[in-house]
Amino acid sequence: MKTKLTMDKIVNLCKNRGFVFPGSEIYGGFANTWDFGPVGVELKNNVKKAWWKRFVQEDPTTYGVDASILMNPRVWEASGHVQNFGDPQMDCKQCKQRFRADTVVENHSKGSVSAEAMTNEQLEQYIAEHHICCPHCGGFNWTPIRKFNPMFITSRGTLEAEAEKVYLRPETCQGEYVNFLNVQRTARAKVPFAIAQIGKSFRNEITPGNFLFRTIEFEQMELQKFCKEDDSFDIYDNYKQRALKFVEDLGLKSENLRFHDHDKLAHYAKAACDIQYNFPIGWQELNGIHHRGTWDLSRHQEYSGKSMLYTDPFTNEKYIPNVIEYSIGADRLTLALLCQAYDEEELENGESRVVMHFHPFIAPYKVAVLPLQKNLSDKAKEVLQLLSKEFMCDYDEAGSIGKRYRRQDEIGTPYAVTIDFDTLEDNTVTLRDRDSMEQIRLDIDELISYIEERVKFN
Amino acid sequence: MKTKLTMDKIVNLCKNRGFVFPGSEIYGGFANTWDFGPVGVELKNNVKKAWWKRFVQEDPTTYGVDASILMNPRVWEASGHVQNFGDPQMDCKQCKQRFRADTVVENHSKGSVSAEAMTNEQLEQYIAEHHICCPHCGGFNWTPIRKFNPMFITSRGTLEAEAEKVYLRPETCQGEYVNFLNVQRTARAKVPFAIAQIGKSFRNEITPGNFLFRTIEFEQMELQKFCKEDDSFDIYDNYKQRALKFVEDLGLKSENLRFHDHDKLAHYAKAACDIQYNFPIGWQELNGIHHRGTWDLSRHQEYSGKSMLYTDPFTNEKYIPNVIEYSIGADRLTLALLCQAYDEEELENGESRVVMHFHPFIAPYKVAVLPLQKNLSDKAKEVLQLLSKEFMCDYDEAGSIGKRYRRQDEIGTPYAVTIDFDTLEDNTVTLRDRDSMEQIRLDIDELISYIEERVKFN
Repeated sequence: MKTKLTMDKIVNLCKNRGFVFPGSEIYGGFANTWDFGPVGVELKNNVKKAWWKRFVQEDPTTYGVDASILMNPRVWEASGHVQNFGDPQMDCKQCKQRFRADTVVENHSKGSVSAEAMTNEQLEQYIAEHHICCPHCGGFNWTPIRKFNPMFITSRGTLEAEAEKVYLRPETCQGEYVNFLNVQRTARAKVPFAIAQIGKSFRNEITPGNFLFRTIEFEQMELQKFCKEDDSFDIYDNYKQRALKFVEDLGLKSENLRFHDHDKLAHYAKAACDIQYNFPIGWQELNGIHHRGTWDLSRHQEYSGKSMLYTDPFTNEKYIPNVIEYSIGADRLTLALLCQAYDEEELENGESRVVMHFHPFIAPYKVAVLPLQKNLSDKAKEVLQLLSKEFMCDYDEAGSIGKRYRRQDEIGTPYAVTIDFDTLEDNTVTLRDRDSMEQIRLDIDELISYIEERVKFN
Repeated sequence: MKTKLTMDKIVNLCKNRGFVFPGSEIYGGFANTWDFGPVGVELKNNVKKAWWKRFVQEDPTTYGVDASILMNPRVWEASGHVQNFGDPQMDCKQCKQRFRADTVVENHSKGSVSAEAMTNEQLEQYIAEHHICCPHCGGFNWTPIRKFNPMFITSRGTLEAEAEKVYLRPETCQGEYVNFLNVQRTARAKVPFAIAQIGKSFRNEITPGNFLFRTIEFEQMELQKFCKEDDSFDIYDNYKQRALKFVEDLGLKSENLRFHDHDKLAHYAKAACDIQYNFPIGWQELNGIHHRGTWDLSRHQEYSGKSMLYTDPFTNEKYIPNVIEYSIGADRLTLALLCQAYDEEELENGESRVVMHFHPFIAPYKVAVLPLQKNLSDKAKEVLQLLSKEFMCDYDEAGSIGKRYRRQDEIGTPYAVTIDFDTLEDNTVTLRDRDSMEQIRLDIDELISYIEERVKFN
């Protein structure tokens, strides 16, 4: 691609081709929410399927769960979210704009300061010492910094007086911790083992969203590996490698990926690392691998009064397992895959095309069925019906065949099957490859196995 | 099965075998929430996959979406939920218990009265005329009936003063209506076409849950078919049949299924029907098919100011499409499938077994790999690795082979593969069928295709 990829290009393609629409768009939208359209929902579901296959189905030591979004509020006291969760905010008194203080400090220091781990006092001191002005109006007249808890709060119960304060979960992993004993018992699982989950989390964010990068409602794919302290750093390193391999196997290029080890850690953490992707907005966190020690299970033991001790079946040793967390946002990964797949190609005949080079496994449609002319549509629909039993398919009979190929290129369909008059004679079709644009002639009976072999994720 | 199936049996099996756990159980639970465990999450995901395959993948006129749970609050004004949604409640002044007035009337009349469509005044009159006493204490001293809106309310924004009241969606279908124009445009869809979605909804319910039957957080699988008025009743009838066929194909027996046409309709509706399933708690709604007329799109046109007129590409006629809605709860269907699959069998040798006769497509694990003895586990793990690339598999090397078969029966695994000493010699294994308990000898190389053919949902 000759011109630089911008987020606007991706957003426009997504809106126009049915990947992603602004949430509640007919009502002027609803800030930082997005709705997946007909091709977007397939893409995102395929990303989730790939993750589940790799990390749950193919790993005999990992067990899935699907926990409720609404949990007993005590969970969020135990996790520390009620007390300590939140972003440091400050307002410019001059122009009334609100900012995250840590973001202001990080931007001013051009990333040389790690503001995330600074206290409010440290942030205020840094801003004063460096005389950091309002990025909006240039004034230097800040309110004090205060924490804002981004958990959405609702209430359960039917009478105001009796209603119980309830939170929309801001992270899915607590669903694994509270089910640690249940899963261990019913699966007769032996440490080290992991519990995995894909599900929605919610954060009342004030920061600019950058499309799917940061939304108030997002889907996490994550697992918590419970292990003995002695093995924990090996397992941590192992997940760093597996996490990298997963996104590379899905199509992200290694030159756009890098590890980012954290210098400053949460007080309970023993190690933490992100994998960053080179988005059009710059290098940003794609996923995280965290060594959380015994913090989570210990806190739940303390708050619930239930023992989280694991008894080693061989040595009879009793201990609270350490936790290695590996977490990746399904929406954010989908955005990275959209960015990576996007290409504008100049063709030999002087024309150009936009093409999404998705890994075939995640492509929304595996194959498009295209009758060369409208009077071939009966035969084409027969083929469509056959293929639809196995794959998500598209069907298109409008416009020139070249135009129809371009449409499929723009949504990343790896194969297009054209039905022509020879098809009626000899039961063969033309199959066109999205990337090479090469065409081969295949018998209809060979289609399913030909495509099936090429759309796997292993 | 000789003894009657009770909900308790299902709940106990679910807790003990890892299908479903009480939500936040270590904190004493959280009323009417449930967490899916390692086998439950697979079962429910497979149910969702079956629905999506049947109604989206195999239907070229249906387009999927995945809309945000949090929507612009105007959506719920347009839909009527802010004004008119809710259950009629009354308290017994004597024992202070709270009841849904319509449920009290329906139970008292043994289902002969359709209380759902009655106004508060009609309900109060009926209760007075029939002198219906408190089901809890037997007293007759009711408060007036009042509506309680079961939408969960939260707020968006970081300052109390500026915060906007936001709702957790109580139904998913509004995600389709607000995207009607987007989907029609980007998919170049022609009426009749449908938009489908699977997603979570939330209701602050006061009614007893009956396990997965009614939960405050539940997952809907539903589609909205947009059609011309002339075709609408044919399409309505067609979805009644397709909805019935779907649940029958998944394994629900016809003697446990019946249509229930509604006598009283919402003011905008032209027809409405449930399919009921004979749960252990009696005949209850499993899914609904509703003819909603032009109500939904007309209201969104009125509230958003965006024209919802569709222009027929052949006749140029302009009209607001009618909507046929087909909706089924993923959790509720999962519960029905758990009840239907459950069996206690007496075997020829005098022993008995609990077995879940799931359709193989929805079974949590397709195959279990069992080494006959522990020193065969290397070979068994090789076979496991091979099969795990294609299927969700279980692995078990603990206890006698008979005991291990029983464990797989209880979670409904259709096939068990046993590795014995002959396996090392000739690369063959024993494959046992869950339902017939018959065993055959197969080459390892034949396993994948043998199983693959038998776990499809077509």
